[in-house]
Amino acid sequence: MGNIGEAYPMKSGDGLHSYSNNSYFQRDIINAAMQIVGEAIVKIVDILKISPSTTIRVADLGCSVGPNTFFAMENILEAIELKCQNQGLDSQIPEFQVFFNDQTSNDFNSLFSSLPPNGRYHSAGVPGSFYSRLFPNHSLHIVHSSFSIQWLSRVPKKVVDRSSPAWNKGRIYYASAADEVVEAYSAQCAEDMARFLQARAQEIADGGLMILIFPARLDGIPHSQFSNNIMFDMLGCCLMDMAQKGIVSEEKVDMFNLPLYFISAQELEAIIERNGCFSIEKMEILHPTITAQSLISTPHKGQAISFHIRAATEGLIKAHFGEEILDQLFDSYSRKVKQQIESNDFASFRIVYSCAIEWLSGSPKEVVDRSSPAWNKGSVYYSTAAHGVVKAYSVQAHLRPTSISTFL
Amino acid sequence: MGNIGEAYPMKSGDGLHSYSNNSYFQRDIINAAMQIVGEAIVKIVDILKISPSTTIRVADLGCSVGPNTFFAMENILEAIELKCQNQGLDSQIPEFQVFFNDQTSNDFNSLFSSLPPNGRYHSAGVPGSFYSRLFPNHSLHIVHSSFSIQWLSRVPKKVVDRSSPAWNKGRIYYASAADEVVEAYSAQCAEDMARFLQARAQEIADGGLMILIFPARLDGIPHSQFSNNIMFDMLGCCLMDMAQKGIVSEEKVDMFNLPLYFISAQELEAIIERNGCFSIEKMEILHPTITAQSLISTPHKGQAISFHIRAATEGLIKAHFGEEILDQLFDSYSRKVKQQIESNDFASFRIVYSCAIEWLSGSPKEVVDRSSPAWNKGSVYYSTAAHGVVKAYSVQAHLRPTSISTFL
Repeated sequence: MGNIGEAYPMKSGDGLHSYSNNSYFQRDIINAAMQIVGEAIVKIVDILKISPSTTIRVADLGCSVGPNTFFAMENILEAIELKCQNQGLDSQIPEFQVFFNDQTSNDFNSLFSSLPPNGRYHSAGVPGSFYSRLFPNHSLHIVHSSFSIQWLSRVPKKVVDRSSPAWNKGRIYYASAADEVVEAYSAQCAEDMARFLQARAQEIADGGLMILIFPARLDGIPHSQFSNNIMFDMLGCCLMDMAQKGIVSEEKVDMFNLPLYFISAQELEAIIERNGCFSIEKMEILHPTITAQSLISTPHKGQAISFHIRAATEGLIKAHFGEEILDQLFDSYSRKVKQQIESNDFASFRIVYSCAIEWLSGSPKEVVDRSSPAWNKGSVYYSTAAHGVVKAYSVQAHLRPTSISTFL
Repeated sequence: MGNIGEAYPMKSGDGLHSYSNNSYFQRDIINAAMQIVGEAIVKIVDILKISPSTTIRVADLGCSVGPNTFFAMENILEAIELKCQNQGLDSQIPEFQVFFNDQTSNDFNSLFSSLPPNGRYHSAGVPGSFYSRLFPNHSLHIVHSSFSIQWLSRVPKKVVDRSSPAWNKGRIYYASAADEVVEAYSAQCAEDMARFLQARAQEIADGGLMILIFPARLDGIPHSQFSNNIMFDMLGCCLMDMAQKGIVSEEKVDMFNLPLYFISAQELEAIIERNGCFSIEKMEILHPTITAQSLISTPHKGQAISFHIRAATEGLIKAHFGEEILDQLFDSYSRKVKQQIESNDFASFRIVYSCAIEWLSGSPKEVVDRSSPAWNKGSVYYSTAAHGVVKAYSVQAHLRPTSISTFL
């Protein structure tokens, strides 16, 4: 991720453990989001306002290697074309330039070689962390990011500092750790998201739209009972089992933490308000179609979840512990997930898989106009900014949590 | 190269035979071009005209894996910054977005991992053939291409057609072949360059500048006596030697041809005139600083040239003949070059290395304005186009071939 922290992208290639073959949860959510995204673009985006020229620029942040990103981009482009028709611009369908962004170490070669051949848009790959600037000022019209903002720019420093009360000994994750650890993770996420929003506020053109799709912890559910957290906690238990057997050193486990944090919609809303550059147009909870039963009825209970977690974390684990532990770790993890399912008769191991989608409209023009009284002179705090800024940045939140879908 | 023909990029990585370690001739020319390019940008480019907004977009077409492309881009950016200062725009230094283009099979992962860390510009990689459209209309301000346009989009069909008088039996190249073969190569180059110019004419903004640096055959020098051609002809001889020894099949050699053509400055000028979208601002012959003596005095005579040719052709040869012949082929090639140098006392093996640089200013605005009387309705021929087009596209050629530099 550029200059910010370590970068371990999703598992590349098209092998058994690749992200490409183990990202169907994400794809399912994108599918679920498709119609909603399309409708929102048709409703919200004013083509004439966002693109007086003939090119509409769209970016996917944290695109990984496909094919999910291609589906998402196609869907956005179709919606814009429909919107053009609705606005009576049939003969002026704009040109599209799509920027595929991910960390520099992402496998862009795979991404490029699998680009759809239809030539519907001009493609470009943009390497670097989305927690820093990636694009010129006001150059993007639609920004999309799906299943990416849960990755922190780095592991919070305190959790690997033996002298800190937030030292996360014997764990690799915050979910069932001490409050200090949770706070360190939460603070890192807040810092990262503030940076994310500040960068995008400069990059998105006036009237632009940002679409964030992310696995969200629902407010009221404790960290330790949130489905995704349970999955990652179990991975930590497997590593500690291996440490007790002398396969890896316990010290190494102590120094390993996952740079992941599942923010809640309300936490994110507060950060967006503090940033002050965006209006929340809409927030929805998505309904995955992959159900508990469809996974549990597979011949290898637990393996689907194991492959899913492996595709996302293999790079990190390999860099810290070495490649040789991977198969043993994920075999043991797969068994542990299966045991958990069976021993509890699916009851206590209820993985709640919620996913929020947020619509953020672009920064008001005066925000980046240094000559305007509304120019936000370095302050990111809504409450302490000058009156002009507060006015320009006023946030209209329409948080509408609906029902929660489950897949286990 | 996208949908057009086969694509075999330069040898990736940083190994012994990599392009990165064997592109010093190209780098030497870029170094020689640096000052000239810088001066030309300062002289020709009108910052206020090309970029009313704050972003200047620069593309390098056929960038390969670096580091040459980074030097070239830095040089262009420095010149634009100097120009801004000259135009009294010190406080308004624009943002830069640099697009690195090469074939889809280029090693973009290597390119991205070696990007300069200074954050002077926003980077993007653009996969695809530069013989087709790559960018939105009017979106680029400076287009640079160095040592790339000598690569054809494909091997001319006729030269591998047994029933054609242009069938190139027993050779892999046109240089000392029958006239029909030369004509087939020349026609392919003309077709490719017409496509190249047509695509760029749409992509470059009004007032933009295109800089082409390419190894040029000087007019008056027969194909068979042009240095680069001699080098590639010798590679064909080595393959035929291997065929005679039964190491490769002669039929396979017959069906293999290099998709390379070294155009002369005057040939290119004629194609630019026919295209009609650009004015030639300047043409210069560059003076490389790598001399004959510096190469011949190396311990392994011939090896430098062998490595140079291998980095550029290995992908093509491997795809057609298999990897196993590579070492043997280039060992034999290296010996042949050495013998040639020694037997002729450096006299007859005089490699003339000329390199032209062309400045093409962007297409006049009315060219792409369909409502203008100057719209070139599909005609690419200057002589048959409507009067308005001829006027809009008038070419001011300042061809100034100066002295020729040699490195052997």
